[in-house]
Amino acid sequence: MTDAATVQEGPFERLSSLVAGDMAQVNRLIRERMASENAPRIPEISAHLIEAGGKRLRPILTLAASRLCGYAGEHHIRLAATVEFIHTATLLHDDVVDGSAKRRGRATANILWDNKSSVLVGDYLFARAFLLMVETGSLRVLDILSEASAVIAEGEVLQLTTAHDLTTDEARYLKVIRGKTAALFAAATEVGGVIAGAPEAQVSALATYGDALGIAFQVADDLLDYGGTSARLGKNPGDDFREGKVTMPVILAYQRGDDDARAFWRRTIVEGKQEEGDLERALVLFGDTDALTDTHARARAQADRAVAALDAFPDSEVRDALADIATFVVDRTV
Amino acid sequence: MTDAATVQEGPFERLSSLVAGDMAQVNRLIRERMASENAPRIPEISAHLIEAGGKRLRPILTLAASRLCGYAGEHHIRLAATVEFIHTATLLHDDVVDGSAKRRGRATANILWDNKSSVLVGDYLFARAFLLMVETGSLRVLDILSEASAVIAEGEVLQLTTAHDLTTDEARYLKVIRGKTAALFAAATEVGGVIAGAPEAQVSALATYGDALGIAFQVADDLLDYGGTSARLGKNPGDDFREGKVTMPVILAYQRGDDDARAFWRRTIVEGKQEEGDLERALVLFGDTDALTDTHARARAQADRAVAALDAFPDSEVRDALADIATFVVDRTV
Repeated sequence: MTDAATVQEGPFERLSSLVAGDMAQVNRLIRERMASENAPRIPEISAHLIEAGGKRLRPILTLAASRLCGYAGEHHIRLAATVEFIHTATLLHDDVVDGSAKRRGRATANILWDNKSSVLVGDYLFARAFLLMVETGSLRVLDILSEASAVIAEGEVLQLTTAHDLTTDEARYLKVIRGKTAALFAAATEVGGVIAGAPEAQVSALATYGDALGIAFQVADDLLDYGGTSARLGKNPGDDFREGKVTMPVILAYQRGDDDARAFWRRTIVEGKQEEGDLERALVLFGDTDALTDTHARARAQADRAVAALDAFPDSEVRDALADIATFVVDRTV
Repeated sequence: MTDAATVQEGPFERLSSLVAGDMAQVNRLIRERMASENAPRIPEISAHLIEAGGKRLRPILTLAASRLCGYAGEHHIRLAATVEFIHTATLLHDDVVDGSAKRRGRATANILWDNKSSVLVGDYLFARAFLLMVETGSLRVLDILSEASAVIAEGEVLQLTTAHDLTTDEARYLKVIRGKTAALFAAATEVGGVIAGAPEAQVSALATYGDALGIAFQVADDLLDYGGTSARLGKNPGDDFREGKVTMPVILAYQRGDDDARAFWRRTIVEGKQEEGDLERALVLFGDTDALTDTHARARAQADRAVAALDAFPDSEVRDALADIATFVVDRTV
């Protein structure tokens, strides 16, 4: 992962530097709005997560999308902060739901404080996000991000019921990852176009870009959990396998497997009875069924869809950087 | 409590019957919007709570407020459903935060399903609430209810940090109960006026009514936990005492107590070291310091403030019922 991480800086950092001035304003606004006169624990917990050095990918996407549409106002700053608040709120709640102890290399808020605080501070950030949107005066933006918030929660609930369930097919998996990742990516880019008053064709292209990028990102992530197409296990490989998560590689390997293979998947994923050597056997079965290479192909197709959507915009540094990010998230899995 | 409960039906039921036609539409809309094609667990959990026979007081307040302002449109139905969704979402999260096993006489969702589902379904209902508001096309409504949601979360976080803390004064207690109860009451009545396009004086009167009613309601509730002014302990008395909650009676008794009394409160509330007879001793100390009667007086003053706010409206059955509710919530504590 370290090599990949080094390479990874490239396109993200390039886009990030293109919107660095705006991002400084976003960071100021975030600090200002996560404050709470009455409950100092709120900014403490928010800051723990927000200032933990995340990539700020989602707000950067909003800033980049509005730049792409030639926006000259100030509301994109509020929307980028909104998107980061919603993302942070979902992370706080996710860590409670998953009982996670670490995030971005640090202890999670639910461990450092408690589950109660994580739930309530998440709720506070959601409410603050909506207040920021109200300030933009755009009902359409509120509609898009409310809908995305519903899809996120729905996807998480769906995920609770898909773990250990081998009847999960590609369509259901896609719904889960739309909720987990793509819905907020798509909303983040779409509202950048909406606030800029861009033509509908461009707004819709931005939504498509975000959706496709989000799906590519999450499929690639699920693939990396098995070491990527080379199936070389790095550190912490097979977390999803151990937790019985039914991600794309498992779906393909199960559907294409023979009776023996299916029995293996039922034992390890459905019944959760795993023994030494099982992860290695899973990798062999992935190889037999082309599960990893075909998962990679699906991520690649989504990246291509993201890049194609950018045709709605004239050539520019921002457009190039957005295209490179889509390609990059998939390349890192090889 | 049974006698009180029987009497209690009076003004609530009267108001409820005045808006019964609208309420039937609200119930239909609630059922329609809590659905989720992708995650059937969402409506299951929502229905468990929403259809458990709560009084629907908050949506009734919204309907009554819009009626009071002569509203003839349809958006009050959406706003009443919004208010019930936000309320239900906060109950789901509260039960996780408090680790509650029972609500309205039934097992809580966090017990019947799990904490994860309660957190996520709460998030889903929040998002759905915002989508309903967007449909009304009123940014002001979105502003009011987003702000209320922030105050609710803030109040709950504040409450986490006030338990066992005898430095809590009346001002901080007021902030907690505004978050816990009054903020949503005030928003529920205010948006009824806003959607009706009522004059500002009436909109502001409705917000005052809801705020005062909510505070009276919660102070009375906290008083009832010690049996009301008569200090006759009914069933489950002293829950707040055992949990070390610093409510109005304790604040007054501690502030007015002598050294011995203060030592008692520190041992029982701060250190949580309670033994048999302590609850009875607390009641004696309440009597010595007029803590219960003065708590009652404060609730009464809020009820008076609520009734006075209704002067902004001409006489009507709805106005009378709203006034009676304010008086009633305090009377039940005698």
